[in-house]
Amino acid sequence: MVLYKEYRFLIDCGEGTQRQLLKSGLGFRRLDKILLTHGHLDHILGLGGLISTFARWEAIPSIELYGGAWALERVRALMAVVLGPGDPPLEIRYFPLEKEGVILEDDTFQLSIFPVSHRGPDCWGYNFCEKERRPFLVDKAEALGVPAGPCRRELVQGKSIRLDTGQVVHPDQVLGPPQPGSKLSFVGDAGRTDNLIEHVAGADALVIEATYLAEGADLAREFGHLTAAQAADLALRAGVKTLYLTHISRRYREKDILQEAQSVFPNTVVARDFDSFRVTRQV
Amino acid sequence: MVLYKEYRFLIDCGEGTQRQLLKSGLGFRRLDKILLTHGHLDHILGLGGLISTFARWEAIPSIELYGGAWALERVRALMAVVLGPGDPPLEIRYFPLEKEGVILEDDTFQLSIFPVSHRGPDCWGYNFCEKERRPFLVDKAEALGVPAGPCRRELVQGKSIRLDTGQVVHPDQVLGPPQPGSKLSFVGDAGRTDNLIEHVAGADALVIEATYLAEGADLAREFGHLTAAQAADLALRAGVKTLYLTHISRRYREKDILQEAQSVFPNTVVARDFDSFRVTRQV
Repeated sequence: MVLYKEYRFLIDCGEGTQRQLLKSGLGFRRLDKILLTHGHLDHILGLGGLISTFARWEAIPSIELYGGAWALERVRALMAVVLGPGDPPLEIRYFPLEKEGVILEDDTFQLSIFPVSHRGPDCWGYNFCEKERRPFLVDKAEALGVPAGPCRRELVQGKSIRLDTGQVVHPDQVLGPPQPGSKLSFVGDAGRTDNLIEHVAGADALVIEATYLAEGADLAREFGHLTAAQAADLALRAGVKTLYLTHISRRYREKDILQEAQSVFPNTVVARDFDSFRVTRQV
Repeated sequence: MVLYKEYRFLIDCGEGTQRQLLKSGLGFRRLDKILLTHGHLDHILGLGGLISTFARWEAIPSIELYGGAWALERVRALMAVVLGPGDPPLEIRYFPLEKEGVILEDDTFQLSIFPVSHRGPDCWGYNFCEKERRPFLVDKAEALGVPAGPCRRELVQGKSIRLDTGQVVHPDQVLGPPQPGSKLSFVGDAGRTDNLIEHVAGADALVIEATYLAEGADLAREFGHLTAAQAADLALRAGVKTLYLTHISRRYREKDILQEAQSVFPNTVVARDFDSFRVTRQV
């Protein structure tokens, strides 16, 4: 789950997600946005339990589901099984992802999508980007006699203000140079990386699958997955700051996946259930 | 899961069962019989993941699914979502439960079903009963000159044999008095117990739900569930040896459920995931 301000984005929902959410202590509160990377069962099956629980027991009036057309079609079929005609109403709003670009935005951040190649159509990656912001320079504001309160907020928002003295203060007088925000790139299953470089470039955190070790490269190719070495190579070439690997095949030991990736890209973490990471802008 | 000789019976399959099976170390080996108590989602949803895994990755050629007509209909709908036309073939054999009695039997045990009242139609409980057996009296056999080997097996199976001396030995001469086998009664969700007493009578182990405490008796009644006290009262009246409680609502603490049940029926256990119990004949 990605937490940002009041938002909670659940990315994909494999079987048992409901249980893990409860165990994690995050619970279901404000969880009303679910982003799907693609429609394979291990990424959507948990929606059956999660959404039927929402419909029956939880005070969540509506859910927004983002995903490729095929993934959403499969989820609709699953919902038809789990939500009976007698169940209380829960509004499910389906947002089919169709083209690269921004899908959600507010004054401080943007959520955008980019295409990913994996088995089957319509796989998507997600970029969570804080907008660049100009820091408010308190010293300069005080020197100019700008009082604390609403007029400082207006300056931050880029509006000029007039002081009680009649003097006009412009944003440029109290705002520092623009500072870029942090960027989190999230890729689900992927069969190649060359078409991802531009999208995850410079990310402070890249979350991506590493199903196989290099020794299983043939299987990885056959099933449209990545090896740990391939994921690490992407992080290196894209100038990523920290690499988080997920979706490890149960045939491997975590430490072998980690070792293979770190030999290419040292700042790698294998993410486990219940791990929590803070993404900040790294220079 | 109930293990008996070469059999493995999975009873119900809530979300995440696949994962818990792997964690338990039992795995999927020989798991080809699934018994459903009823068709509510928290008892069937895990079939989506489990059976799609079987179909894709595991060497399990066919699965037998036993349950009420409505439960099986719901499972069929779920299977239509999770098993695509391009998937490898996995034979799913549906056995609709229709009337009380034996559904599976071999020379040493019987599996039979009995109706259970819960919300919705077609809820069933399961009795696993070892057949009574007459112990082979080695001393007597040796005194009669019965050699070790196949002829002893025939006597155990109730057939008379003729020795090389021409003497005929009848089973009654070498078998002791019948000894009853052990009995495990398994009930899923239930809204009342009066109609269960005769079916679980004398069970060495009774597994049954206890969703609520007595303080939640109104909710229990509304949703067709039992309180811990009701389950314990059933065990007491039916002459059960050990009571295993499951399906505890997450609003309660396990120790409160246990305390309430034990005040009525001391030999009570609250079963947790990964617990393992051996059921033996208790006199």
